[in-house]
Amino acid sequence: MTTKPMIECAMGRKTARHPVWFMRQAGRYLPEYRAVRAGVEFTELCKSPKLASEVTIQPLRRYDLDAAIIFSDILVPCMGMGQELTFDKGHGPRLSRPVRSKEDLAILRRPDAERELGYVGEAIGATKAMLTPTQTMIGFAGAPFTVASYMIEGAGSKEFTEVKRLLLTAPQVFRGLLDLIADTTIDYLLMQRRAGADILMLFDTWAGQLSCPDYVAHALPSTRRVAEAMRANSIPFIYYPGQGSDRMYELGSGDGSSTPLPVDVISVDWRTRLARAGAILKSVGMNVTLQGNLDPQMLLGSESLVRERTRAIIEEGNNAARAHIFNVGHGLLPHTPPESLTWVIDELRK
Amino acid sequence: MTTKPMIECAMGRKTARHPVWFMRQAGRYLPEYRAVRAGVEFTELCKSPKLASEVTIQPLRRYDLDAAIIFSDILVPCMGMGQELTFDKGHGPRLSRPVRSKEDLAILRRPDAERELGYVGEAIGATKAMLTPTQTMIGFAGAPFTVASYMIEGAGSKEFTEVKRLLLTAPQVFRGLLDLIADTTIDYLLMQRRAGADILMLFDTWAGQLSCPDYVAHALPSTRRVAEAMRANSIPFIYYPGQGSDRMYELGSGDGSSTPLPVDVISVDWRTRLARAGAILKSVGMNVTLQGNLDPQMLLGSESLVRERTRAIIEEGNNAARAHIFNVGHGLLPHTPPESLTWVIDELRK
Repeated sequence: MTTKPMIECAMGRKTARHPVWFMRQAGRYLPEYRAVRAGVEFTELCKSPKLASEVTIQPLRRYDLDAAIIFSDILVPCMGMGQELTFDKGHGPRLSRPVRSKEDLAILRRPDAERELGYVGEAIGATKAMLTPTQTMIGFAGAPFTVASYMIEGAGSKEFTEVKRLLLTAPQVFRGLLDLIADTTIDYLLMQRRAGADILMLFDTWAGQLSCPDYVAHALPSTRRVAEAMRANSIPFIYYPGQGSDRMYELGSGDGSSTPLPVDVISVDWRTRLARAGAILKSVGMNVTLQGNLDPQMLLGSESLVRERTRAIIEEGNNAARAHIFNVGHGLLPHTPPESLTWVIDELRK
Repeated sequence: MTTKPMIECAMGRKTARHPVWFMRQAGRYLPEYRAVRAGVEFTELCKSPKLASEVTIQPLRRYDLDAAIIFSDILVPCMGMGQELTFDKGHGPRLSRPVRSKEDLAILRRPDAERELGYVGEAIGATKAMLTPTQTMIGFAGAPFTVASYMIEGAGSKEFTEVKRLLLTAPQVFRGLLDLIADTTIDYLLMQRRAGADILMLFDTWAGQLSCPDYVAHALPSTRRVAEAMRANSIPFIYYPGQGSDRMYELGSGDGSSTPLPVDVISVDWRTRLARAGAILKSVGMNVTLQGNLDPQMLLGSESLVRERTRAIIEEGNNAARAHIFNVGHGLLPHTPPESLTWVIDELRK
């Protein structure tokens, strides 16, 4: 049987080939992506299995990557729940009727993942048909707290004032929203699995916007519910807690649970040294694979600097955990020079 | 001799009275501040010793606080260095001619602190005359890296692309800028000390925007130079590394120094538990006082919640370090209900 290096590493078995992929590897830094995107709205691109699978596969045509991650957005399920999603030029995502009250919550619903979000599964199927047997197909969703942040603010935010206001002044509405998102997310991820995803990843980009006590009380329980559903279905699973290591201390039993968060891989933000992330996670009983964590802005540097930083991450990754998947510590930025990725991959293949 | 509880605690001596102040305690959440601000531009307010001392003292008229922090902005010295500073409504600070090249750096200069930034000293003198002998006068500056971030971007930033581009592609220009800011900052802080500041604080709000290796290489050395100048002059000194605990690991000998960063107090962001900050700092040889770290958004909560969170911070602070100064973990926000501060202070006085 042919094995996939990324899945092997995710499950804790080091492989001769050091697996690599890049968060947001299908994106605006690639001219071929911009060409597709020029003719179509962002949400239309997400909804078209043909176009979504095309942009998903684009980076694998250019680079010797170990995985494709389906092109989509963490807010796609919000459309299924009943909010309208738009992307204003230069302003990021907007969601209609931000959730600020019991009434706002009441009009949202748990979508039928297969029927209402099935285009993502179709795109996964179409992409997977183009992969080699050693390449991994990644599906993903946003973590309930991070998705809730957008659904409450109605847009990106700096201070998360409305999120925290709701959490403090209407905790039952907040909890109800997180439960709805968790249910939707589980359905959505299982649908992606059925469609062919080899591994699933949960992006908790805004985890770092809660103090540790609030993260434990208001974000971790719903993330745990999603992780447990994946574990119950034996699906390899990656969790990305954005912005700093503080929340990693909580993933063991910070929420009073008797077992650590059941995940196979923790994806590490570039703000934290891999060695420290590994040490923190071990200290809370989590023997996981680490993924990450080059600062994507380092790809602006010269070839020698990019190679040097890559070697440093490889060395740290090899020592920090049971296995390591090379990645950036945050999504690639639109100004990333495409050739810089070839230097990274070349160092990994040496 | 009358002692100041905040200074006693800063130097490691616990006091019967638990000292408290709030970052950005003079600000838009107070109607009396908005009344002064209505008639004057932000930079004019900073430059007027009469108005700056008036808004500085306003929160001490309302609340039983242990300290006044001079009303100013971390970008005020940039005007002395030769950039124009403006505040667009809703857009935050703008600095003219962002530093992107050797030529941009060459036209900047080290100002005469007394002559060109003396209005801050005058405001400190005028405020200090209004304080009781037990109240502490705080002066401050931005840390060189954080100030450099604005000087390079020309405004606030999300990704710090230009900062990192300069750091990577023109490291000598970047280093030259940090040296200039460090020199200016030392002059500026010593001037504030002569004017009557009892303690000085260095805000490194954007420390968390560098990976640990970059923080060690590009930010910590200039912060260390400022801290050493304060220590050489026996001035009590507070350092605030914004966004997470990761950089605290580096403050011991992360930069290869034989001695830890010489500071008396570390001010802790709300993202990190005080107990963990204390443990990390002790592990790198720093036996310091901690300041912080209530999430300012928690002040949106009910009286019982604010009191509960305050008690939790008091308890953690009492156990985490040699002494504790109560504060928020980030500046107060404009929508803070003014009465919430009275609940915090009441809990501290119980």
